[in-house]
Amino acid sequence: MSAPKTAITPTRAEDFPEWYQQVIKAADLAENSETRGCMVIKPWGYGIWELIQQQLDRRFKETGHQNAYFPLLIPLSYLEKEAEHAEGFATECAVVTHHRLEAVKDEETGKTKMIPTGELAEPYVIRPTSETIIGAAFSRWVQSYRDLPLLINQWANVMRWEMRPRLFLRTAEFLWQEGHTAHETKEEAIAETRLMHQVYAEFLRDHLAIPVIPGEKTENERFPGADMTLTVEAMVQDRKAIQAGTSHFLGQNFSKAQDISFTGRDGKVEHAYTTSWGVSTRMIGTLIMAHSDDDGLVLPPRVATQQIIIIPVTPKEDSKQAVIDCCEALAETLRGERFHGEPLRVHVDSRDIQGGQKKWEWVKKGVPLRVEIGPRDVESRKVCLNRRDRAAQEKEFLEKEAFIRDAADLLQAIHDTLLERASSFRDENIVPCDALATFETHWETENPGWLITPWAGTPEEEDELSKKHKITIRCLPLDQQDGDEAPCLLTGKPTRQRAIWGRSY
Amino acid sequence: MSAPKTAITPTRAEDFPEWYQQVIKAADLAENSETRGCMVIKPWGYGIWELIQQQLDRRFKETGHQNAYFPLLIPLSYLEKEAEHAEGFATECAVVTHHRLEAVKDEETGKTKMIPTGELAEPYVIRPTSETIIGAAFSRWVQSYRDLPLLINQWANVMRWEMRPRLFLRTAEFLWQEGHTAHETKEEAIAETRLMHQVYAEFLRDHLAIPVIPGEKTENERFPGADMTLTVEAMVQDRKAIQAGTSHFLGQNFSKAQDISFTGRDGKVEHAYTTSWGVSTRMIGTLIMAHSDDDGLVLPPRVATQQIIIIPVTPKEDSKQAVIDCCEALAETLRGERFHGEPLRVHVDSRDIQGGQKKWEWVKKGVPLRVEIGPRDVESRKVCLNRRDRAAQEKEFLEKEAFIRDAADLLQAIHDTLLERASSFRDENIVPCDALATFETHWETENPGWLITPWAGTPEEEDELSKKHKITIRCLPLDQQDGDEAPCLLTGKPTRQRAIWGRSY
Repeated sequence: MSAPKTAITPTRAEDFPEWYQQVIKAADLAENSETRGCMVIKPWGYGIWELIQQQLDRRFKETGHQNAYFPLLIPLSYLEKEAEHAEGFATECAVVTHHRLEAVKDEETGKTKMIPTGELAEPYVIRPTSETIIGAAFSRWVQSYRDLPLLINQWANVMRWEMRPRLFLRTAEFLWQEGHTAHETKEEAIAETRLMHQVYAEFLRDHLAIPVIPGEKTENERFPGADMTLTVEAMVQDRKAIQAGTSHFLGQNFSKAQDISFTGRDGKVEHAYTTSWGVSTRMIGTLIMAHSDDDGLVLPPRVATQQIIIIPVTPKEDSKQAVIDCCEALAETLRGERFHGEPLRVHVDSRDIQGGQKKWEWVKKGVPLRVEIGPRDVESRKVCLNRRDRAAQEKEFLEKEAFIRDAADLLQAIHDTLLERASSFRDENIVPCDALATFETHWETENPGWLITPWAGTPEEEDELSKKHKITIRCLPLDQQDGDEAPCLLTGKPTRQRAIWGRSY
Repeated sequence: MSAPKTAITPTRAEDFPEWYQQVIKAADLAENSETRGCMVIKPWGYGIWELIQQQLDRRFKETGHQNAYFPLLIPLSYLEKEAEHAEGFATECAVVTHHRLEAVKDEETGKTKMIPTGELAEPYVIRPTSETIIGAAFSRWVQSYRDLPLLINQWANVMRWEMRPRLFLRTAEFLWQEGHTAHETKEEAIAETRLMHQVYAEFLRDHLAIPVIPGEKTENERFPGADMTLTVEAMVQDRKAIQAGTSHFLGQNFSKAQDISFTGRDGKVEHAYTTSWGVSTRMIGTLIMAHSDDDGLVLPPRVATQQIIIIPVTPKEDSKQAVIDCCEALAETLRGERFHGEPLRVHVDSRDIQGGQKKWEWVKKGVPLRVEIGPRDVESRKVCLNRRDRAAQEKEFLEKEAFIRDAADLLQAIHDTLLERASSFRDENIVPCDALATFETHWETENPGWLITPWAGTPEEEDELSKKHKITIRCLPLDQQDGDEAPCLLTGKPTRQRAIWGRSY
């Protein structure tokens, strides 16, 4: 007996990384470009990003932040000011050294070639992140404690030269938001770092249906220049970890390097405490790997470019227009309904192409609800419904009125199912471990899950163990640092600290 | 008698360019950065851009376009493919030549310096515009006439190295949108070029209260590589022209250079016809110069970050909270009202600072409606209102209920006043001219307006006349090409063509 055919080849079980590429291709989300490591985000993928942007932006504004925009190019001298930060990004900076081109004739081919000219006295790097250039602005803006807190966010493109790019997850250029704030006191800055960490965790859960482990990074894994890095770690279907967002408490490191200082309430000049936090188009890679199946993309409803696709089934020419009219009218009615405050996004696909092809296109594109209406349904006022969180073959007939009434609830039900599935999968695949021997053999299995261990090793010990098994400490999970003392996995030292280890993207 | 004091020094009449800088500074819109020619867009300025983006984006989607995102970096070889285009942008391209940095110790100072390393085999330019890289993608996406039309837009940053930057109007990096479309026929592509030209003209009129002259550029002023460039030209208060947006019909120039070809209905392979069109953060500079006055920024209501500012007037401590509560309640009620479908944007400024300072801050920031409420107004249910299109001292008292009812109408009235003022000013300052002698002396006056002339000169003749008087043909106005024949200003040749000449930013 042959295996049931799937829309995506290979399946997840056969070859997860290749399955991922094929899902992206089949859903028409993005593609590689000729610019090394850079992708083209196609409309269906960019639509997801637009929704992520709008929804996150609302949360940022509700929490008191304002958007601004800072230069793409950072003078080299800015990077030099914070040594650890500069070192952290040095190997992946795109450098602008010239500001014009000159046309010269290639003697061999006779063709015109452009060569760089107008060398710059001081080169610039394309921002890999903007702490330094935003810090320079903050230094101008902050004079007194009355200017604090300063709560700024930027939506922008950044560039980190990638040697092994992977669509969405790791590209040389990516789109992101970076929050940058300055505060009067350490406590306030830490509270901000924690607040935005929580905003990210909630956003991933409530908008992308991705359950995350909120935790702190160890010193080894911190953002270059940070005193504390908080992370939200997602587990995807091959049990690897994806760092889906980070929030950094930068202490006074950048404010001292950039002189962000202010006259305090007591009249003394002090350095501000700063934070930064960001999420990127990487979240799209995360949601693909978290939810999609062997038939292609599965979109969490809140960020689905289209939430409902209506397909007119028109076997006969004489009833065709009536069916299409019925579909359009239904779409218009549904657009008057709301899901989480936003009008439903509904599309009628009345293209003249073969029905099976049409259906599978939308399956592969991950639209949460697919509705088919034929001539008989027009008369009986019914719709034939498929939910993307169920098998593509599974259909149910609903009264049209009931479907209109329940559409938003159905979307929420799909969200809940995705979240529940991802949560169970993750919980099954995080295993406590306190014996080094078990720990070491665990990583020899295929697609190993995560291990949570008591941990009190040094950064060097962590590094050694990580390299040996090609793993990292994903985080010290926030909710598990107050338990009983137990002996450290490696050193045996009693510790309350727990670390989660895993392979990651 | 001394002149009445204004909030901005110098006034427009005293020194228009410096007045412009001071308006931007006083409204806290943007500032220069240490990155050559690049600005920091501050929250009050970025808020205007966000509104422009949202409102334009809606129009683009209504006219069938989808957003996507393409790489920031363009391989040099792409630029070489369209010679005229490459030449047009060669002198202003930022070039990336290296992809990492190395820390070296400066022998003299002992400090660590970063130097570029990892030289690229093929350099990249930061996009000055994306015809070439988007064309490369279109070449992959378009195979058959069924794939057309392809209607894509991108919101992005671009870079054109500027020798004489000016905030918003001319900066090395700027934010913009660039539409790129491909069509089966020349007629369709021209119709698209005209449609988006019209969208821009309407947007400027209906959202920014800027009346524009829609017209065609002469060959000399066309976009490098275009067959036709349509422009919307705005006149600002020093009578200079600002090209506020352009829409280009690119013929088959780029599709041939990039091989955007398709199998047509007749089975033959053909090259597509393409268009591109864009507007940028330059529109913010245009609206500042079009509407602001000697007291600072005047914001057109639809793109005002805040449309109504409510100031509690609290002379006595015991009634203070009641006044603030009354203001907050009014703000909440107003937020339930709509202006062009969007909830009113209302802010209550209850900071503990001196009343006069507070008032003038908002005047300088250009908020359309300013409302003050004091203890007596709480009791009498009145508000004291100032419209930003009238003198800052001019106040009227309104019943609170009437104000709530009329708020959206008041905003529309301000929009209409701004548009009418700008239209009259423009109309008074475009003068027909058919004698060369009059034409030549006209440009010797200070801040000369525009002249409209019969014109049938060659590109060389146009260039000579332009250089002589530091002017350009702003456009051949679309609505004036069907008049009577008249002798060309320069050559005397009979012509129906009319050209508008002016100085420009």
